[in-house]
Amino acid sequence: MTAAEIIRKKRDAGSHDPEEIRFLVRGALSGEIHDYQVSAWLMAAFLRGLDAAETWALTREFVESGVVMDYPGLDLPLVDKHSTGGVGDKTSLVVAPLVGVCGCAVPMISGRGLGHTGGTLDKLEAIPGFRTDLSLDEFRHNVQEHGVALIGATAQLAPGDRYFYRLRDVTATVESVPLIVASILSKKVAEGIEVLVLDVKTGAGAFMEDLESARYLAGELVKTGRRLGKTMVAVISDMTQPLGCQIGNALEVREAIEVLQGGGPSDTRLLCLELAAWMIHRGRPRLSLEEARALASRQLDNGEALAKFRELVTAQGGQGAIVDDPSLLARTAQRFEYTASAKGYLHHARADVLGRCALLLGAGRRNAADSIDHAAGVTLHKKVGDEVEKGEVLATLHYDDPLRLEQIRPLLKQAFRAGPEPVKQPGLICEVIS
Amino acid sequence: MTAAEIIRKKRDAGSHDPEEIRFLVRGALSGEIHDYQVSAWLMAAFLRGLDAAETWALTREFVESGVVMDYPGLDLPLVDKHSTGGVGDKTSLVVAPLVGVCGCAVPMISGRGLGHTGGTLDKLEAIPGFRTDLSLDEFRHNVQEHGVALIGATAQLAPGDRYFYRLRDVTATVESVPLIVASILSKKVAEGIEVLVLDVKTGAGAFMEDLESARYLAGELVKTGRRLGKTMVAVISDMTQPLGCQIGNALEVREAIEVLQGGGPSDTRLLCLELAAWMIHRGRPRLSLEEARALASRQLDNGEALAKFRELVTAQGGQGAIVDDPSLLARTAQRFEYTASAKGYLHHARADVLGRCALLLGAGRRNAADSIDHAAGVTLHKKVGDEVEKGEVLATLHYDDPLRLEQIRPLLKQAFRAGPEPVKQPGLICEVIS
Repeated sequence: MTAAEIIRKKRDAGSHDPEEIRFLVRGALSGEIHDYQVSAWLMAAFLRGLDAAETWALTREFVESGVVMDYPGLDLPLVDKHSTGGVGDKTSLVVAPLVGVCGCAVPMISGRGLGHTGGTLDKLEAIPGFRTDLSLDEFRHNVQEHGVALIGATAQLAPGDRYFYRLRDVTATVESVPLIVASILSKKVAEGIEVLVLDVKTGAGAFMEDLESARYLAGELVKTGRRLGKTMVAVISDMTQPLGCQIGNALEVREAIEVLQGGGPSDTRLLCLELAAWMIHRGRPRLSLEEARALASRQLDNGEALAKFRELVTAQGGQGAIVDDPSLLARTAQRFEYTASAKGYLHHARADVLGRCALLLGAGRRNAADSIDHAAGVTLHKKVGDEVEKGEVLATLHYDDPLRLEQIRPLLKQAFRAGPEPVKQPGLICEVIS
Repeated sequence: MTAAEIIRKKRDAGSHDPEEIRFLVRGALSGEIHDYQVSAWLMAAFLRGLDAAETWALTREFVESGVVMDYPGLDLPLVDKHSTGGVGDKTSLVVAPLVGVCGCAVPMISGRGLGHTGGTLDKLEAIPGFRTDLSLDEFRHNVQEHGVALIGATAQLAPGDRYFYRLRDVTATVESVPLIVASILSKKVAEGIEVLVLDVKTGAGAFMEDLESARYLAGELVKTGRRLGKTMVAVISDMTQPLGCQIGNALEVREAIEVLQGGGPSDTRLLCLELAAWMIHRGRPRLSLEEARALASRQLDNGEALAKFRELVTAQGGQGAIVDDPSLLARTAQRFEYTASAKGYLHHARADVLGRCALLLGAGRRNAADSIDHAAGVTLHKKVGDEVEKGEVLATLHYDDPLRLEQIRPLLKQAFRAGPEPVKQPGLICEVIS
């Protein structure tokens, strides 16, 4: 077997057996196969596709290329969630501590934001002192001790995925469903979990813009995860408008705390409860989905989830006091209120454009090396379907640099569309694959 | 413009403008674009194709990435030929000196053999002392002085092609017509020629096995070459059986000398005259094709071409005496005669299988790094259509290592097929695109 033979096979639309996938991944990591050969294979795989068995084998090789976590002495179901990325999506900050007080452990490895979508690690780092770079020993210890921990990807977990992903990022081979599936699942399986609930976004602000594509990605994730022996659920949720009202790192931490206090925007609370309920129900099958939902709802309302969040923050070096006094979080020096030019109903609040506004105000990264302004972002005061008076504030922009404000003014006009006819609020939960 | 954008465009079946091709080739050579990005682009180009304008632009960038030769003071038409590779194809050794005594100059850059096909450089190096590694200054001087010189590719000529070809070789992206066209033509255009005559082989021993594919490759080469301002002719010739009777480096030098002496196998002489006639006719348009053919024929028969070959060999450090005494060329210690098992007519003498026999006897390379036994090879005593008596010798195998002979015995059976019914000799010249 040579690298060129494997590339040729995929180029000619052949199917790899598991040994060929193993040869490719191990060879790439050992240096016997060169990066320029891996990238040629990636493009062939992008254009020719990978079937279910190949996707499964690739995921498994990524997992086996590194450490698979275990948590000796922990007698709780190990569950996690993964979102395909959206705008204003702070659910992980709520769901992790919430499920952690519902009889499950949540060892969560998260990512950073890129482009118009945010990342959980960036949000957590808006909390002064919060360490997302725990060692795997610290991570294991925190999961054993507190039932929940949130860190970033490390070189020890699924290094095969890390190697392939870096190449995909610079060779235009990111948007391939089987490659996405292997990348997402390998990191999650390496966490040592039993249950994975996926939040697959659909709509303008999502990676998969139409429902058909989202359904396809969700189906492939569920199918491959099950083949790897995991209990899988996929929730497909709307991302035509941002989730909740806050976009930006410190702003989203605030909103997460509101939800953990039993309040917050109704859509954010609803999606958090839906995801948590599935995680709990699948982790503790004796609880029905409705019982799990009721339990999670109670734990939000009685302060238990909030207390677990404070514990989690403190355990990872963060300033626990922000949980009770979110005004300790960073704020920008400047704010600008964008108002409605006419009375009517809000028809659109485009998630992609508002995500891009937050990015340009400093909340995100255009390139992986960019630094972030944790305080910057956008607060929405109206959501699709809401009635709007002329002059009423649609959004508050949080910024420090007036130049950046000028840059995004033309974008803001594209973000919102209002009209005289009433419109229904869009449904948040589109479908569940359970 | 970024490398990833260019890769994405080709991935999505877009067409590049010349600036994008320029950015890609220049970026690759300067190191701003990484080899793993070029190889992803190569796979996308392999699977999505390049149109005529893209192929032209890529060829031009390869040419402009290096030196384009000129020959100040030389007042002769500059012509060359290129073969797509075959078995027993020693035409360059005949055609270069022959055209050099017909009022044209031939600055020829040739390649090495790989797999079952041979390469002109390897054949020349079977001549003791012959230097194929002249510097470009020496090459220019020899063309100016002797009207003809033959060397291998250098790092100064079309370095862009060199870079891309090395990546193609290890990423299964060789067999793409537009990439082949750009690679062949860029090296030839960099020679500074005005006329290029292509010998595109078709049949079992050729890169393009069927006539349709050979015609397509020939057409693309002619079209792109003309767009680059060159006078182009393509001869499509048969490679179902080997050309002539000798396969192997020193053996082919012998046969070339026979043809230069006015003798040799009729098919080798015919193809040499056809290629030479087109080169002369296009280089000196006042001569008709028939006049050019007659001139070339005379120069073979009167010893002029042979004298030019002796001059060429001597000018490049080779032992000129081999021209008059080919027994000075290397010979193997062992010979084996393969005989016919029944009386009949030879229906097949498969070029691919016989090329592979010669390769396994030591005449060729399985990998680019293999060394070559210049004396090894196969002599054919019968060609397709010939009558064969039982026990008559079909081929002589030249070898040193008896183990190698054992390896190829099963192959030999596949190479020849005879039958009781007479068959026509196959036509050698299939088509000419002029």
